[in-house]
Amino acid sequence: MQVKRRELLGGMVSAGAAFAMPALLAAQEMRVLIRVDAGRLRRRLEGLSVYGRPEGGTFPDGVSRVAYSDADVAGRKYAMDAMREAGLQPRIDPAGNIFGARAGTDASLQRILFGSHIDSVPNGGNFDGDVGSMSAIEVMQTLEVNHVTTRHPLEMAIWSAEEHLVGSPLAAGGMDESVLKRVFNGIRVEDGLRKIGGDPAQLAEARIPPHSFRCYLELHIEQGGTLDKAKIPIGVVEGIVSIDEYEVEIHGFANHAGTTPMPERHNALLAAAKLIEAVQEVVTREPGRQVGTVGQLQVFPNAPNVVPGLVKHSIELRDLSAEKIARLGDEIQRRAQEIAQHTGTEIQIKKVDHDPPAMADPEIQKKIEEAAARFDLKTMHLPSGAGLDAQWMARLAPMGMIFVPSIGGISHSPKELTNWQDCANGANVLLHTILLLDQQ
Amino acid sequence: MQVKRRELLGGMVSAGAAFAMPALLAAQEMRVLIRVDAGRLRRRLEGLSVYGRPEGGTFPDGVSRVAYSDADVAGRKYAMDAMREAGLQPRIDPAGNIFGARAGTDASLQRILFGSHIDSVPNGGNFDGDVGSMSAIEVMQTLEVNHVTTRHPLEMAIWSAEEHLVGSPLAAGGMDESVLKRVFNGIRVEDGLRKIGGDPAQLAEARIPPHSFRCYLELHIEQGGTLDKAKIPIGVVEGIVSIDEYEVEIHGFANHAGTTPMPERHNALLAAAKLIEAVQEVVTREPGRQVGTVGQLQVFPNAPNVVPGLVKHSIELRDLSAEKIARLGDEIQRRAQEIAQHTGTEIQIKKVDHDPPAMADPEIQKKIEEAAARFDLKTMHLPSGAGLDAQWMARLAPMGMIFVPSIGGISHSPKELTNWQDCANGANVLLHTILLLDQQ
Repeated sequence: MQVKRRELLGGMVSAGAAFAMPALLAAQEMRVLIRVDAGRLRRRLEGLSVYGRPEGGTFPDGVSRVAYSDADVAGRKYAMDAMREAGLQPRIDPAGNIFGARAGTDASLQRILFGSHIDSVPNGGNFDGDVGSMSAIEVMQTLEVNHVTTRHPLEMAIWSAEEHLVGSPLAAGGMDESVLKRVFNGIRVEDGLRKIGGDPAQLAEARIPPHSFRCYLELHIEQGGTLDKAKIPIGVVEGIVSIDEYEVEIHGFANHAGTTPMPERHNALLAAAKLIEAVQEVVTREPGRQVGTVGQLQVFPNAPNVVPGLVKHSIELRDLSAEKIARLGDEIQRRAQEIAQHTGTEIQIKKVDHDPPAMADPEIQKKIEEAAARFDLKTMHLPSGAGLDAQWMARLAPMGMIFVPSIGGISHSPKELTNWQDCANGANVLLHTILLLDQQ
Repeated sequence: MQVKRRELLGGMVSAGAAFAMPALLAAQEMRVLIRVDAGRLRRRLEGLSVYGRPEGGTFPDGVSRVAYSDADVAGRKYAMDAMREAGLQPRIDPAGNIFGARAGTDASLQRILFGSHIDSVPNGGNFDGDVGSMSAIEVMQTLEVNHVTTRHPLEMAIWSAEEHLVGSPLAAGGMDESVLKRVFNGIRVEDGLRKIGGDPAQLAEARIPPHSFRCYLELHIEQGGTLDKAKIPIGVVEGIVSIDEYEVEIHGFANHAGTTPMPERHNALLAAAKLIEAVQEVVTREPGRQVGTVGQLQVFPNAPNVVPGLVKHSIELRDLSAEKIARLGDEIQRRAQEIAQHTGTEIQIKKVDHDPPAMADPEIQKKIEEAAARFDLKTMHLPSGAGLDAQWMARLAPMGMIFVPSIGGISHSPKELTNWQDCANGANVLLHTILLLDQQ
């Protein structure tokens, strides 16, 4: 698909080539859109899926390409080979992040950065991270084969160890050297970094100075079911949610389940049950996309014939508005004290973590919409409930994210699935968002 | 305290000795009650408490005299020495149960059997089992030093491994040889039996034929707080409750806690919370002493940032009426299906165990009341919520149980406590119940 560079205008070239043409544009001008090669993108996603594939599996049976594993190393080699096919010279920074730069016509302009990751959770899916990473390569290769040179320099990134948020926080200065001693997937981070071509001794050199690039873009699967349910192919991310994490301890009194009459009990699990329901009620009683989850819970002594004396559990609240989840947390705290009184227990709730929200740049959101409109793709604005590399880049420069649907909202699972058409749509919107931003 | 045997009538001897005299009896006849030696009973309880005492502890700091441990062996030796002081010749059956017989005046009569146990749970208390066992010895010694011979032969028992219900079920034919291969407290039962003087090869000889004794009596601490709260010194046990045990599996769908909107969730832990509350509500909405407990619960995958996909938990229902707990179980089953529908989960409830109730003999209950009345001790009828050796003896012959208060209802804990006066009261009521039954 060789297209001569004529009248390049934000990715539209007037041409006689047999490209599909949106009706809206066709009425105004005979122009065609530069597009990614959907077949090549698909082949790359299938090719990458081999590394970490379950034994005897096929595509898309999921992947265990956990950071620093042999599969991770092999997958990174595959990605770097693909980058070379796209005309890039891969470079690995000390934090293990892979970069590939493409020169622009105006060296005085800041680069446009975009990318994702290829590491996975254990028993993860074939689309989380992979779609954004292979699409970034595809964008570069599409520009290359179409002989398109942007004004801004471009740079793509494949962040290391995204599932543990290591590579991008190190680049953003949001993590110090203490991470080197931590162990993920059975390997110390410092050893893991060496294994994937990083250099733990030179970690400071991985830092990207704030405002040193024009903006950061990331294409990712939604990992939720909102787009799939609404049948909307492109999500325009408003931001990455703020997270408040609490640890709860409920102290009752462990006693014989046969000999302790019901009114005499100080049942920590009954109190926990009421608190779990209160979290649900507080989070869902007002409109909005806030979520609240009790995902981890332990009972002590945990025997069928003993009234539970102690329960420990988590509460996690997420929303784009940090103020909203703080308010919900206060309300849950108030309910907990009522429950403690009713159940004769003592409830301690401690906030153990707070991630501020990372807002997407409104101008970039508009460009994403515009890019989608070029392909007649409907869009929906939504938050990202998951933490992603983009939240770290947002600390350095304007950030924007494009979501494509996850079928059934399933993610971090071998059942994770995104249609090929949706993958190609996402890559095209990424390409044209870059081209639109390049015009400014 | 030597009292000549004169006009022995159900344990009352007319005498000039300086015994306390209930007002009721005093008005009718100048008679005194034969009584246990409260000081000796206390010394025996303190003496026994040494074996399995926590390091650096004193009485009553609790005990870890788990079955087949060195402490159990030492405690059994202490008990057998005490039995010898009471004029008995201890005998160990193949199941490790200790017996001590005392002849009656009429060898044609069936023996009256009574006893308890001296093994404990790990970090248990100094009264569970010990009070009944030391009181059984005290009853024998009181008869001995008072030169009282009953018509019926008497036999006391210290059942082995009560906390695992091994010795008495083996004696009652409620357990087969497969128990020999089980491991309790880190030791195989067959090895444990040898260690305590039993004989696993001759287990069948431990069987006590049904109807081969007149009745079985047991004095025990309540292990609940009913008597203590009501300030009643003697509990007349109506029976040992029936137990239904259920295993519950709640299948939802594990998903990302950040990206899965609240209405899209299939949250197994939210369903479990509602079911825990339903159990509480179903069990407490009607009068009675039934109890229901969710004591054991596990969440999968149990991570703060994952909506729980699977919860497994126990439900245990107890009441004297097997019909009542069956009905409550049906109602809980019905509620569970409603909850499953509301929460988008699937709930499976499987009955995994059913213990029938073991009813106390009404005639024996009357004798216990009568015995208590002799000491002006108030009584209260109540069920035993705990399983005890007596439930096995009830399969063979009429059974009766006497409870004394547990302060605060605390049991299976080093904080377990029963007043000395209550221990002595219990022993006296046991003694006089035997004497009253002996008259029949």
